[in-house]
Amino acid sequence: MNNPLVGIVMGSDSDLPVMRGAADILDEFGIPWEMIISSAHRAPEKTATYAREAAGRGLAVIIAGAGSAAHLAGVIAGHTPLPVIGVPISSGALNGVDALYATVQMPPGIPVATVAINGAKNAGILAAQIVSAGRPEVREKIIAYKQKMTRQVEEKSALLQELGVEMYLQKIGGKKA
Amino acid sequence: MNNPLVGIVMGSDSDLPVMRGAADILDEFGIPWEMIISSAHRAPEKTATYAREAAGRGLAVIIAGAGSAAHLAGVIAGHTPLPVIGVPISSGALNGVDALYATVQMPPGIPVATVAINGAKNAGILAAQIVSAGRPEVREKIIAYKQKMTRQVEEKSALLQELGVEMYLQKIGGKKA
Amino acid sequence: MNNPLVGIVMGSDSDLPVMRGAADILDEFGIPWEMIISSAHRAPEKTATYAREAAGRGLAVIIAGAGSAAHLAGVIAGHTPLPVIGVPISSGALNGVDALYATVQMPPGIPVATVAINGAKNAGILAAQIVSAGRPEVREKIIAYKQKMTRQVEEKSALLQELGVEMYLQKIGGKKA
Amino acid sequence: MNNPLVGIVMGSDSDLPVMRGAADILDEFGIPWEMIISSAHRAPEKTATYAREAAGRGLAVIIAGAGSAAHLAGVIAGHTPLPVIGVPISSGALNGVDALYATVQMPPGIPVATVAINGAKNAGILAAQIVSAGRPEVREKIIAYKQKMTRQVEEKSALLQELGVEMYLQKIGGKKA
Amino acid sequence: MNNPLVGIVMGSDSDLPVMRGAADILDEFGIPWEMIISSAHRAPEKTATYAREAAGRGLAVIIAGAGSAAHLAGVIAGHTPLPVIGVPISSGALNGVDALYATVQMPPGIPVATVAINGAKNAGILAAQIVSAGRPEVREKIIAYKQKMTRQVEEKSALLQELGVEMYLQKIGGKKA
Amino acid sequence: MNNPLVGIVMGSDSDLPVMRGAADILDEFGIPWEMIISSAHRAPEKTATYAREAAGRGLAVIIAGAGSAAHLAGVIAGHTPLPVIGVPISSGALNGVDALYATVQMPPGIPVATVAINGAKNAGILAAQIVSAGRPEVREKIIAYKQKMTRQVEEKSALLQELGVEMYLQKIGGKKA
Amino acid sequence: MNNPLVGIVMGSDSDLPVMRGAADILDEFGIPWEMIISSAHRAPEKTATYAREAAGRGLAVIIAGAGSAAHLAGVIAGHTPLPVIGVPISSGALNGVDALYATVQMPPGIPVATVAINGAKNAGILAAQIVSAGRPEVREKIIAYKQKMTRQVEEKSALLQELGVEMYLQKIGGKKA
Amino acid sequence: MNNPLVGIVMGSDSDLPVMRGAADILDEFGIPWEMIISSAHRAPEKTATYAREAAGRGLAVIIAGAGSAAHLAGVIAGHTPLPVIGVPISSGALNGVDALYATVQMPPGIPVATVAINGAKNAGILAAQIVSAGRPEVREKIIAYKQKMTRQVEEKSALLQELGVEMYLQKIGGKKA
Repeated sequence: MNNPLVGIVMGSDSDLPVMRGAADILDEFGIPWEMIISSAHRAPEKTATYAREAAGRGLAVIIAGAGSAAHLAGVIAGHTPLPVIGVPISSGALNGVDALYATVQMPPGIPVATVAINGAKNAGILAAQIVSAGRPEVREKIIAYKQKMTRQVEEKSALLQELGVEMYLQKIGGKKA
Repeated sequence: MNNPLVGIVMGSDSDLPVMRGAADILDEFGIPWEMIISSAHRAPEKTATYAREAAGRGLAVIIAGAGSAAHLAGVIAGHTPLPVIGVPISSGALNGVDALYATVQMPPGIPVATVAINGAKNAGILAAQIVSAGRPEVREKIIAYKQKMTRQVEEKSALLQELGVEMYLQKIGGKKA
Repeated sequence: MNNPLVGIVMGSDSDLPVMRGAADILDEFGIPWEMIISSAHRAPEKTATYAREAAGRGLAVIIAGAGSAAHLAGVIAGHTPLPVIGVPISSGALNGVDALYATVQMPPGIPVATVAINGAKNAGILAAQIVSAGRPEVREKIIAYKQKMTRQVEEKSALLQELGVEMYLQKIGGKKA
Repeated sequence: MNNPLVGIVMGSDSDLPVMRGAADILDEFGIPWEMIISSAHRAPEKTATYAREAAGRGLAVIIAGAGSAAHLAGVIAGHTPLPVIGVPISSGALNGVDALYATVQMPPGIPVATVAINGAKNAGILAAQIVSAGRPEVREKIIAYKQKMTRQVEEKSALLQELGVEMYLQKIGGKKA
Repeated sequence: MNNPLVGIVMGSDSDLPVMRGAADILDEFGIPWEMIISSAHRAPEKTATYAREAAGRGLAVIIAGAGSAAHLAGVIAGHTPLPVIGVPISSGALNGVDALYATVQMPPGIPVATVAINGAKNAGILAAQIVSAGRPEVREKIIAYKQKMTRQVEEKSALLQELGVEMYLQKIGGKKA
Repeated sequence: MNNPLVGIVMGSDSDLPVMRGAADILDEFGIPWEMIISSAHRAPEKTATYAREAAGRGLAVIIAGAGSAAHLAGVIAGHTPLPVIGVPISSGALNGVDALYATVQMPPGIPVATVAINGAKNAGILAAQIVSAGRPEVREKIIAYKQKMTRQVEEKSALLQELGVEMYLQKIGGKKA
Repeated sequence: MNNPLVGIVMGSDSDLPVMRGAADILDEFGIPWEMIISSAHRAPEKTATYAREAAGRGLAVIIAGAGSAAHLAGVIAGHTPLPVIGVPISSGALNGVDALYATVQMPPGIPVATVAINGAKNAGILAAQIVSAGRPEVREKIIAYKQKMTRQVEEKSALLQELGVEMYLQKIGGKKA
Repeated sequence: MNNPLVGIVMGSDSDLPVMRGAADILDEFGIPWEMIISSAHRAPEKTATYAREAAGRGLAVIIAGAGSAAHLAGVIAGHTPLPVIGVPISSGALNGVDALYATVQMPPGIPVATVAINGAKNAGILAAQIVSAGRPEVREKIIAYKQKMTRQVEEKSALLQELGVEMYLQKIGGKKA
């Protein structure tokens, strides 16, 4: 597992602060990834070539993030038999509803596995779940990750019992909404 | 003006009942057109090739209609310097809001001239307005078309005065809402 | 590949006309599936048990379809390390926007791979793409499926050139919108 | 009335600044409450156990607050015969519309009593109204609370008459919108 | 338990086909109800009087259903210390989103326990849950009702296993979506 | 009061089945009206001239109804000092939300008094309320109209008590939703 | 014209920064007004009494502004034959769409003349247009106000020609968006 | 090409920071433009006159930007045979959705070529595409512009490979979202 298994593509470098969330969680699961900037509109050849060659180069999943009329994930999905995960990115006046609809409402035949608006971290986890088939060590890490989340919820709840609302809020720096 | 000036592209033949509205109005203006079915997702090479060759083949405008996550117009716009008109088509649960957002919210650099949901007729008129530059006979037809619309409004209004509400409604087959 | 690889779960038997689309396409790809009716609200234990045991029973993916406040896919995802595909189903006054938001907007840590509203067929294709890793014969079928879609678009477009708009519409039974 | 009558559950400690509003108003009505952090997705067992045991432990109402694909209230409602109040919490790109739909649009059989987005205070008042049956002293407090609200409106209105717009705005620190 | 415990109010008799769902389920739970037509706008005095006298007349809960700018539940809640359940009713061009927002987005101080659009049946169940406090026989019926729902899901799922998709769909009269 | 006091303008004769609702209620109040078809886009001069001359011709209010990008009311309001009432008309894919926003969201300086989508009857009542200033006989009719509505609500409610749900529904031809 | 002709009501003093816009413009037109704080929910009697007595006290129009589930204008309209202008106020997670729908979507029989979200200034102008009937001096002021707006647009446009974009932006303190 | 080919109209000088984006890109393409402030509502005569005279004065395209109930582009389109490009501008509570609907949803007969909310730059590019017919030097500039965009995407992607996520983000000043 040294060659990248997951390709992370974003339409603009302004998407990088969101999309790095996918890379970070893949690192946590020990899954190698690669990352490129491309665009369905401004660099259509590069996008098509990348998508067409992805399976042959050994990638197992592609994660594509874009905002506004987010065509990137759908266009990539048109060029590859691999599963494609789409991350709608919030930008501009419509706050990501445009990107959500443009990513998720794919016509029959070409699915995009869409996660929440700005949900790059979940895109990374979903990619890990997909590549975990036949890789028991990744499956184990996912199970452990879920158990850790459960423990954290329980610890926070226990701490809240112990401290009470006021002190807990002080501790986390929250203030009355 | 024998070669097509306007290319009409649609993502599926289910879009044809809407998209023929563009062809019909172009016929009325005497502007030659051609029509193909292609798809940004299911036939991406065909779409890219068509868009890349359109200007060289003498087309002046491309009209692209698609529903759902309507990427067709935007993808074509990425491959051609020609003006591209997008027709969002209403289909499925979201009634065309998805297609509208996916068509109009293009990122900076690659515009799509978007008309109303299912607005293929207006797409045809807009194409005629665009090709009318340097073609005074088309410009004249557009002016005449607008004058005809004005006259029709005036005639209907006069008829309404004459007949009154009840008889007018009977005449147009309308019933009380 | 005789044991089910894909579990198809739906919240109500009223979802079956939509959800069978997933089963049909999996049949086309030769991927064994199983199908149950369960509910995050009305049968929470059954749902939890099914999700917890899925990986151990050899399933590779779960597809979950539900309408309204569609919690089914998310709840299942909370109980399994497997990738979970969510199908928001259109029902009631909000036409599936409620189901879309309730399915796709999952919080960090628990992704649901969401497809279009009523997009069960795409859910099946996505499941096939996921299980195709390590199964070259499935990968080949997906590639062939995509090529068939491309051919169909091309054939329809050629037929439209040949017949013209009127005759083509008569042939597909379409009428002017 | 020393044991908790109202259980307040939230999906994440980031919801605490909003959800404490429920606790505060319950304190004002003298109704004992308890508060835990749990999650329909990250701690599903804990959530199910809590909900299943709530009635037996003497709770009369559960208030559940969550954001995004807010499944918490609905999942709890699936496990208890008690009335469950849902507080959709605004977070992320959709500003709480996702949480509202995911909370309120429950399918037939499993209601969630939904209050406004971020309406934790109203959730607390509603819980008090529910527990007031058979507790005349709570009923009296609710009546008094409503009378106090009426008086405050009247006092503010009287003050506005007295001070005029400019001085009133200075007093409350408001500025021209 | 002979006197009505639940008051069901609706803004127009056109709401009756929906609102009777609340009455039917209350009958199933053996909870006496009364039903009136009133209107926050067309019969404001009647509405106010009804709400003001409800608690004194022994009602425990009021269910109010209305469409469009649905003010009925909120106005009633302003006049009574009782818990008020609001049923937004789908009507007109906005399909009930207007009624949902007008019902659920109550300002601090005056909650309305809102259920799904057209969710009158759930309003009835919620009313039963509220009146079940101190009435163990109602609590038992609610528990039995939930168990029956669980059984029905399990029976349907078992029947689907037995019959397969095609025969099950024939049986329920469903057709491929 | 023989000359028209209220001008009813609509963008298309397809709006007449809705807009006649305004004329009908004005007849009921004995307020003379006139009705024309005009269009902000197809007959802009006619629209402007009508609006500019309205006050001088003795009109007191203009009611304007239009669908889609409903500019008619706003454009008329730009040309007259009279109060202008806008009726957003539901048509096409967006069901009147487009017409509502295009009618109500007028910029500072040029108000349009907007009623509900398809709310032509209310537009007529509002026009009557406006012309009732200085016309006590109209004011009396409005008061009587409101009292009649109140009575009708009370009579329907009484009939519902008398008949019960089943028989009342049979009487009004309603069926279980 | 010394007694108030326009009553300005708001649901909360937090609405005052917006609602004073109505008072300011009425001052500009020389129309006397009064202003109260009331609430359809927290002070229902006060609201009803105010509305019922308004016509008798000589008011000609009522302007009512409220946010969230904005029932204030509709409730007032139920109690008075006067024209009622509603100002939906933006607050909370839904940014005023809730208030817009709750204000404008009034059922047949009880109109509310709705202006834009936060459009209190336009509410004031509309009130002036309404009271201008039979008050030529107000009508003249409205005409003059409209002419002033036209002149201001022309002066700004002329200044833009003169200064060019850069210098004009510097002058108005604007920066490139 | 010394006389203006493109007229840029905006409803208010508050739109200038957005609308200058159209002028800037037209400068980049060497296309002369003119810019005025006008308003469909506050300066309707000026707007109509400008639109009516535009074709005769040699303009080839008009770009119109407005916010809220954005009628400007549609009104201009009613008065000219030229293609009209509409820029919906985000302002106020609805964030530009109102302006988008009011601009794009034009009725049959009068198209407006709509670009994204605040998409003035794309309006400028679209205008350039339209005037490029018969002006090979503009066509060449558009092609070069698209190639430059492609190159920039490729350079950024290459730099991201070279620097890695952390250093790239530091370079562009981005931080983890």
